Amino acid sequence: MPVSNVKALTFDVFGTVVDFRSSIIRHGEELGRRKGLAVDWAAFADEWYGGYRPAMNRINSGEDEWANVGAIYRRRLEELTEKFGLDSLTGEEKTRFNQSWSRLDPWPDSVSGLTRLKKKFIISALSNGDFGMLTEMGKFAGLPWDCILSSEFFRRYKPAPEVYTSAIELLGLKPGEVMMVASHNYDLRAARALGMKTGFFARPTQYGPDQAEDLEAEEDWDIIAAGLEDLAQKMGT
Amino acid sequence: MPVSNVKALTFDVFGTVVDFRSSIIRHGEELGRRKGLAVDWAAFADEWYGGYRPAMNRINSGEDEWANVGAIYRRRLEELTEKFGLDSLTGEEKTRFNQSWSRLDPWPDSVSGLTRLKKKFIISALSNGDFGMLTEMGKFAGLPWDCILSSEFFRRYKPAPEVYTSAIELLGLKPGEVMMVASHNYDLRAARALGMKTGFFARPTQYGPDQAEDLEAEEDWDIIAAGLEDLAQKMGT
Repeated sequence: MPVSNVKALTFDVFGTVVDFRSSIIRHGEELGRRKGLAVDWAAFADEWYGGYRPAMNRINSGEDEWANVGAIYRRRLEELTEKFGLDSLTGEEKTRFNQSWSRLDPWPDSVSGLTRLKKKFIISALSNGDFGMLTEMGKFAGLPWDCILSSEFFRRYKPAPEVYTSAIELLGLKPGEVMMVASHNYDLRAARALGMKTGFFARPTQYGPDQAEDLEAEEDWDIIAAGLEDLAQKMGT
Repeated sequence: MPVSNVKALTFDVFGTVVDFRSSIIRHGEELGRRKGLAVDWAAFADEWYGGYRPAMNRINSGEDEWANVGAIYRRRLEELTEKFGLDSLTGEEKTRFNQSWSRLDPWPDSVSGLTRLKKKFIISALSNGDFGMLTEMGKFAGLPWDCILSSEFFRRYKPAPEVYTSAIELLGLKPGEVMMVASHNYDLRAARALGMKTGFFARPTQYGPDQAEDLEAEEDWDIIAAGLEDLAQKMGT
C-alpha cells in the first residue's frame, strides 16, 4: 500500500513533538529559584527521564503492575530526592513539580508542521504519555491534534504491538492507512512490523548535547525528513 | 464543589453538538438522487436512529455482545432495506451510506460556542459514538475538540456509570472538575449521580418537528443555557 493511501498520522510526542529535556530543566530552574535550591538540573533531568524506559519495560514484561507515566515519574522523583538535595520539598510541591511533564515546549517547527498536516490528514498523538498529560500538553503547547491516543487506554507501553493495533482499530483504518511518525527508530520498527507506514526525522538534541542514538534513520522508512515542516512538505501539505 | 472549579467540559455529541437527523435525511436524499430511489428519508432516518438505543441497552444489560455504533447502524440498515425499497444498493454502497454517521452537520452555534469555551477549558467529546466516527466528524464539522473520549474505549454505553468515571480518570481530574454537557436529561442525571457538574440546553428539533422529550431541563442542572454560545457566555468565555 503506497504512502498516498495514508489517512492518519500518529505521532510519538516526547522527543518527537516536544523538547522534554530542556523543558524539564527550565521547570527545575524555576523551582530552584523559588525554593533557593542549588541543583544541576540537567543531570537531574537525565536521571529523572532515565527511570522511564526501565519502568515501562518492567510493566510490559509483567514484572510490575500497570502504572501510568505520571505515577512512574512521581515515584522516580521520590527516589532522586536525597541524591539531588530536594529534601526540603513537600509532597505537594513534588506532585506539582511532577506536573511539569504536562507543560513541555514544542520544538520550533512542531505547531506549524502539524497545522499544515492537519489540513489533509487526521493527526493524533500516539504516545506512552498519559491521556490527561497529553491533553494538557496539547493545550499548553498549542498542538492542534484532531484526537489523542494514549498507551494508557490499553495499559501497555510502546513498542508493545497491542498499542499500535488497538490505535489503528479505534481509528477505524487499515494499518497501511496510518503512518507512525517518530524520532525514535525502535518505535518505527514496531509500527512497520504491523504494516503501518513510517515517517522519521531526527531530533539530535532530544537527549542533550551528547546524544548518541537516533541521530539518523536506521532503516529506509517511508518518509525521512529534516523535521516536522519538511515532513508536511513531503506529505504534500 | 462550585462550577468555578470546572476544568474540563465533556460533551454529548449526537443531538447536542450535531444535528444528526437532518444530516442523515440530507445524505439519504443525495443517495436517492444518485440511485434514483423514491424514499421518505425522514421516516427512514427516524427508523434508522430508532434502532440505536435498544441495541445499546441490550449490550449494557449483557444480552448482546459488544458492538460499536458503526456496526449497530450497519446491521439496522440491513433490517430496513426491504421496507424502504433499498434492495438495489450493493453491500459496498450500504457501507458507504452508513459512513454518513461520520459526516453530520453541527448546529449553527456549535463551532463558535466550542471555540469560545476552548480558550479557558479542556473541551472533549464524551459520546457513545465510535472513536473513529467522532474523529472524522470533528474534522468534517470543524469541531475544535482538545481530545475525544468515546464509550468504545470502555465497551459500555452511556448512561452506564463506568463511561463517566473512566473518562474522568483518564482526564486526571476529580468528578466536580468536569462538567457533562448534553441536551438529554438522562445523560446529565447519570453524570450528576457521580458528582459531575452538569450543563443543559435544549435542542428542540433534534428528533424532528414532533419532538416530545428533552424540550426543557427536568432538574436544576448547574448551568441551563439557551444554546452552546449561551453556555459559553454563562461559563465566562
